[in-house]
Amino acid sequence: MAPEPTPLRRPRADQARQVADILRQQIHAGTFTSALPQEGALAAEFDVSRNTIRDALALLKDEGLIDRAPKVGTHVAQRKYDHGLDALLGLKETLRGHGDVRNEVRTAILVTPPPAVARRLQLDPGEQAVYIERLRYLGDLPLSLDLTYLVPDIGAEILERDLETNDVFALIEQISGGPLGSADLALEAITADAHSAATLQMPEGAALLLLERLTKLDDGRPVDLEYIRMRGDRITMRGSLTRQPDPNSWELT
Amino acid sequence: MAPEPTPLRRPRADQARQVADILRQQIHAGTFTSALPQEGALAAEFDVSRNTIRDALALLKDEGLIDRAPKVGTHVAQRKYDHGLDALLGLKETLRGHGDVRNEVRTAILVTPPPAVARRLQLDPGEQAVYIERLRYLGDLPLSLDLTYLVPDIGAEILERDLETNDVFALIEQISGGPLGSADLALEAITADAHSAATLQMPEGAALLLLERLTKLDDGRPVDLEYIRMRGDRITMRGSLTRQPDPNSWELT
Repeated sequence: MAPEPTPLRRPRADQARQVADILRQQIHAGTFTSALPQEGALAAEFDVSRNTIRDALALLKDEGLIDRAPKVGTHVAQRKYDHGLDALLGLKETLRGHGDVRNEVRTAILVTPPPAVARRLQLDPGEQAVYIERLRYLGDLPLSLDLTYLVPDIGAEILERDLETNDVFALIEQISGGPLGSADLALEAITADAHSAATLQMPEGAALLLLERLTKLDDGRPVDLEYIRMRGDRITMRGSLTRQPDPNSWELT
Repeated sequence: MAPEPTPLRRPRADQARQVADILRQQIHAGTFTSALPQEGALAAEFDVSRNTIRDALALLKDEGLIDRAPKVGTHVAQRKYDHGLDALLGLKETLRGHGDVRNEVRTAILVTPPPAVARRLQLDPGEQAVYIERLRYLGDLPLSLDLTYLVPDIGAEILERDLETNDVFALIEQISGGPLGSADLALEAITADAHSAATLQMPEGAALLLLERLTKLDDGRPVDLEYIRMRGDRITMRGSLTRQPDPNSWELT
């Protein structure tokens, strides 16, 4: 079937989105050391009007990626950091080389977890767990707000350790005496409510990556259930996937 | 180091966030077939005040996950669909069993791609590419807006195929005669600009998952560069990760 005929002139908003997506990728890749090219040069490169370039840059400004001002031009406002989807790493391990990760410990207590949490950690009804809440910084930048439930045997020992400068993963491995096994992840995009936004020092309504992660020891025992809010303007999740065709998909071919 | 003493009463907003995260997971897991338990029952289950439960439910309502009304109670507003982070699958393959994926083809044309796109697809300067823009529905629900650049040899043939009911992945495999290899992914959370929101029939400012995906044939040749905006209230990315300790992390132990 031949495609529908395409109008010669596509809506400017569609073209601006298309340009913005490519510029966003170039900003993340470090293509622009600081200033972006002038509007005229970008218009030529993308073969669109200067108005389309202005609309594309407005989209990126609204995302907090660039600053624009008359005479000063367009500059990269802040770089994003890559968090991995290929291996299970804590934030401090992930950002090694970018600076020091510091954790503000907001809560670190023994709790009786809600039944839904107890089931995921395979705890008996009424059995206690450790609950830790940390605001995590890279230098002075708040990156994420982490809510962590730990099984009581490992959690009680973690309460005695230095939570301000260590990843919980590293502490679990020190205490359990072996490497972690694997984790189940669920990743969502949500907007920041007023209180989460204030805590993470971001605008209310800005986008967050919400990661729910259940981490298991090498023997498959779940020990660590986390709810991690990452600033959307600071973190990109990166990884690679391999094609594993579902056998069903070949039925009809 | 012992943890800082924790105040006996934590701020209600912190407790509400904690409750909301667990309820969100239960909603996704299908724990509540339709109605959520009454506020009093939830307050007992989570060992918090009814006001905290109300605040938690308000957060989930703002995310579009639940509806609340006097006398009617609290109901799950819409379910989210899981998209995989473990294997490389197209949307139609992913949602098999949930309903028919239908694509509204907004654009399908030959273009001279911007240099940044040409480089990623390993095209010569000035070489043409195929550009396809599709709004993808599950039944009547818009799920994602996909911007796709294809290398010209495969892309030209894809323009002749039925783009309304097929995944691009399936078409590439039919045309190239073999399975795809792997893909590099970057996943971000952004808010929807006015025009993208209108296209995806979602509120302006609501959260989007933005997936940039460069897909390669089995021989490593990149053929397909996509920018995919998924509705944050409709899609959860799920997968599992294995611990692969960085050798450097053992230096200090």
